[in-house]
Amino acid sequence: MVRIGHSLREAPSMPTKNDSLKRLSAQLDAFAAERDWDQFHNPKNLAMALAGEVGELIEHFQWLTPDEAANLPPATRDAVGLEAADVLLFLLRLCDKLDIDLAAAAHAKLELNAKKYPVSKSRGRATKYNRL
Amino acid sequence: MVRIGHSLREAPSMPTKNDSLKRLSAQLDAFAAERDWDQFHNPKNLAMALAGEVGELIEHFQWLTPDEAANLPPATRDAVGLEAADVLLFLLRLCDKLDIDLAAAAHAKLELNAKKYPVSKSRGRATKYNRL
Amino acid sequence: MVRIGHSLREAPSMPTKNDSLKRLSAQLDAFAAERDWDQFHNPKNLAMALAGEVGELIEHFQWLTPDEAANLPPATRDAVGLEAADVLLFLLRLCDKLDIDLAAAAHAKLELNAKKYPVSKSRGRATKYNRL
Amino acid sequence: MVRIGHSLREAPSMPTKNDSLKRLSAQLDAFAAERDWDQFHNPKNLAMALAGEVGELIEHFQWLTPDEAANLPPATRDAVGLEAADVLLFLLRLCDKLDIDLAAAAHAKLELNAKKYPVSKSRGRATKYNRL
Repeated sequence: MVRIGHSLREAPSMPTKNDSLKRLSAQLDAFAAERDWDQFHNPKNLAMALAGEVGELIEHFQWLTPDEAANLPPATRDAVGLEAADVLLFLLRLCDKLDIDLAAAAHAKLELNAKKYPVSKSRGRATKYNRL
Repeated sequence: MVRIGHSLREAPSMPTKNDSLKRLSAQLDAFAAERDWDQFHNPKNLAMALAGEVGELIEHFQWLTPDEAANLPPATRDAVGLEAADVLLFLLRLCDKLDIDLAAAAHAKLELNAKKYPVSKSRGRATKYNRL
Repeated sequence: MVRIGHSLREAPSMPTKNDSLKRLSAQLDAFAAERDWDQFHNPKNLAMALAGEVGELIEHFQWLTPDEAANLPPATRDAVGLEAADVLLFLLRLCDKLDIDLAAAAHAKLELNAKKYPVSKSRGRATKYNRL
Repeated sequence: MVRIGHSLREAPSMPTKNDSLKRLSAQLDAFAAERDWDQFHNPKNLAMALAGEVGELIEHFQWLTPDEAANLPPATRDAVGLEAADVLLFLLRLCDKLDIDLAAAAHAKLELNAKKYPVSKSRGRATKYNRL
């Protein structure tokens, strides 16, 4: 059994200073503190900012065919990279404010997904787990 | 000057196997390969899946006051953690398919933000950079 | 019983030319035809465009307190009005392409909601229907 | 020149009771009043709820090819219709709380779009207006 509650709070043993997510979180924290932005960075606001950034990211793809989207010109790809960065930064910030260890949550989710989508049932099918 | 194009493609020198983002990317890759899901995981589809997951995350906060959102009961917090995980997993998968190094992009974006939001102008203000 | 399948396809008897949704749909159709944009306006693309516009709308509110959001300065309110318009226009366009009568669907949904949220159980509570 | 401020507030002369948007707004108002839900329906919360519903709508399309998305099986199409209805209902509710006339805003936006996307420049191209 995956003990979610537990696994979301305790990160796997991993050297902190070499981990990109932990470094980014610390940098974001300093960035906001310097600007006195903690007053704006409550979870409700950050969830909205996250949605706004995902909206900006998706706009790059909306009129492209799947083939075009898989073969972006370099300038578009770089622009998408910066939007993806914004998504990650607000997601990290949201998790920090909620005391969620994002990497640990992602590992827990992968374990859950492995159970929800057993290879035998989900191979080659995009069906949602509750309809498998 | 931040050389975006360069910085998005080359990760800072960092031990790969200890980095949570790199480990998650590799695990996602194996997960999708085992299930023959690469056929669904093109960038256009992944951008949509990302938006869908952010929608699920935001729903947890929509009727809460800012105070309530900052003090979630543990069960809600764990549920938000798993939604945040889904956002990260699809974001990583999207970046992989576009050959974007998400951690490098995030570092580049933080450098850009430091220029766009100088402390002297942005202290205590949520104003967007182009109106500072 | 609400016969959804039926009600989504058949609009209530209502004079077409005076209905704002029907007029807007017809105008959108002409607008896209003149510009040869039907090639871009498939349902998958339109769903993405809709998400993008909602992202733009939500950005206006993300750093505001609930009180500030309820008392927008006129310029912001007008900007929000135009974003809301974009949401409606893409939503209508999506529904047209899927042969969905949006007004009929909305009426059907209101009837469903009345059953899912009986006054006696939902009064003063934002709890989702499946937890009432 | 389109006078946005004016046009967002004043609806075109149109018989109210026959207009689907106005009827839906009135029904939503009664629905919320009966359940004492106005306490939750402030613009910030409604903008979030709108984003959540669009997330649910987009999930129906994320793994489909453009062709599959344009040819939904009837059950999926009906489900999409109900999600589209939710988007409209929260959009209308948001506009009501902000005293925005959604139909008038949509008409104003169509006029703006006609100027931003002249047929001669935008025919057959999905390029955003500021790059035309």
